Amino acid sequence: MEPLFKKVAIIGVGLIGGSYGMAVRQRGLASEVAGIGRNPDRLKRAVELDAIDTCHTDLKSGIENADLVYIATPVGNVLEYTHQIAELAKPGCIITDAGSTKSEICKGADCLTPSNVYFVGGHPMAGSEAAGIEFANPGLFVNATYVLTPTEYTNLDALCKMRVISESIGSKVVEMDPETHDRCAAVISHLPHIIAAAMVSLAHSYSSDNPQIFDLIAGSFRDMTRVAGSSPDLWRDICMSNPDGIAEAAERFKVQLDQGLTAVNNKDSESFYHWFENAKNIKDTLSKK
Amino acid sequence: MEPLFKKVAIIGVGLIGGSYGMAVRQRGLASEVAGIGRNPDRLKRAVELDAIDTCHTDLKSGIENADLVYIATPVGNVLEYTHQIAELAKPGCIITDAGSTKSEICKGADCLTPSNVYFVGGHPMAGSEAAGIEFANPGLFVNATYVLTPTEYTNLDALCKMRVISESIGSKVVEMDPETHDRCAAVISHLPHIIAAAMVSLAHSYSSDNPQIFDLIAGSFRDMTRVAGSSPDLWRDICMSNPDGIAEAAERFKVQLDQGLTAVNNKDSESFYHWFENAKNIKDTLSKK
Repeated sequence: MEPLFKKVAIIGVGLIGGSYGMAVRQRGLASEVAGIGRNPDRLKRAVELDAIDTCHTDLKSGIENADLVYIATPVGNVLEYTHQIAELAKPGCIITDAGSTKSEICKGADCLTPSNVYFVGGHPMAGSEAAGIEFANPGLFVNATYVLTPTEYTNLDALCKMRVISESIGSKVVEMDPETHDRCAAVISHLPHIIAAAMVSLAHSYSSDNPQIFDLIAGSFRDMTRVAGSSPDLWRDICMSNPDGIAEAAERFKVQLDQGLTAVNNKDSESFYHWFENAKNIKDTLSKK
Repeated sequence: MEPLFKKVAIIGVGLIGGSYGMAVRQRGLASEVAGIGRNPDRLKRAVELDAIDTCHTDLKSGIENADLVYIATPVGNVLEYTHQIAELAKPGCIITDAGSTKSEICKGADCLTPSNVYFVGGHPMAGSEAAGIEFANPGLFVNATYVLTPTEYTNLDALCKMRVISESIGSKVVEMDPETHDRCAAVISHLPHIIAAAMVSLAHSYSSDNPQIFDLIAGSFRDMTRVAGSSPDLWRDICMSNPDGIAEAAERFKVQLDQGLTAVNNKDSESFYHWFENAKNIKDTLSKK
């Protein structure tokens, strides 16, 4: 059977890009997977790990004849790459990305992209605080939600092909407009990263007066602050590209938080019980999904 | 060899009490472990699961001749039990608890306890959002921090015996005064539970306008909100007994959070980078511990 794509080119062969290459190769979804990056040693390692077939430090040679270019760089570089690829790609090429915010990117791509290459925004909900090709694995996308963010300019054939490849690597595809994605991702991902960082800094600020505080750390604090170990480069880019979404989420978060805190302050145990129970009920419903 | 205690009595044979019984029995630290509770079926189940030797719905018969009484009830009931046990226990008996807050309990116990029984406050950092004897396991305390909170009234022999039994079940013992414990636990455990509940309620508040928001949930949100599934009864009691600690932690948390949010709002990518990097460095240091 003919593979879905003749050539897939991946820019940025780290955790996401590397896992994508592994998944595409393992499932025979492309005849060739080209890896594009700045560091030849890391690219060579990606070949050893079966993430890519060929290595390219030059964008032009890497994307030559590619039917799909997968941009797995930090959010801040996606538009610049989209622009360059659009100039160099063969007609009919699909460009997609794995950026954690979508409004800026999709708006920019809609303006930049000539009519003979097709941009489809994407966001696989499959990252982790780990980074780099060594953590890549072909199962990363299995059972993960893969968000695609079409706009009024999106080519429907390209969108359809993106659905097919995303489902073929095991993901559950969800379509959202880029603005809705960013509003919701602020709540589910961006603000939580900022909260986790604040919790860690809080504990540290206590430690000068209470050096034993870190002895108290158990599973709950560890789990809640895991993502504070994420890459500052990555999260600077993500947060800087979604200030409105984060501001709204933060304002509404503080309202929720203050409900619980006010009940504690007032020693109003009944209100606190109902407030906490309500959250538990929501959480339990989510856990069953 | 003579076991450390002839008889250990455990009040409340759930996750913590049941696991304690299993650990004590498995390691031969007592000749008899008596379980005390209201529900005969659950006590019978605890016997089947090797958590206790004997069942008692009557406090007096349960603690008769006990050398150590372990109170593993919700925080709100600890003092009342301590008072009752102090009246009934044999001279020399040690009373300890596993409550998540310590100031109220230790202050109350210091006043209540006659001089021939010895109270030592404790807090094993080994809970989970799961509850009940079915989740109990003898390894729960292994490698966990076991906080003991002596005061000026604490009997040193009793404290020493509590150190020995805690280390014998595999825990790392840390001593703190009750006030320091509560101040620190507010940061590491109590406020995080309130934050987790607020995050879940926040997501729910978005879902009427954005029903797809829950599709975005991945590992980070799931981990950060795990404890929102904890028992509202338990957490009402805990939070109600540490309002000052929680208020201080919340105030200082908001200062930390606002540093990150202000940088996002101002699109000040450099400040945000340094703020997040600082948290990551602390987190990375903690992970190595």
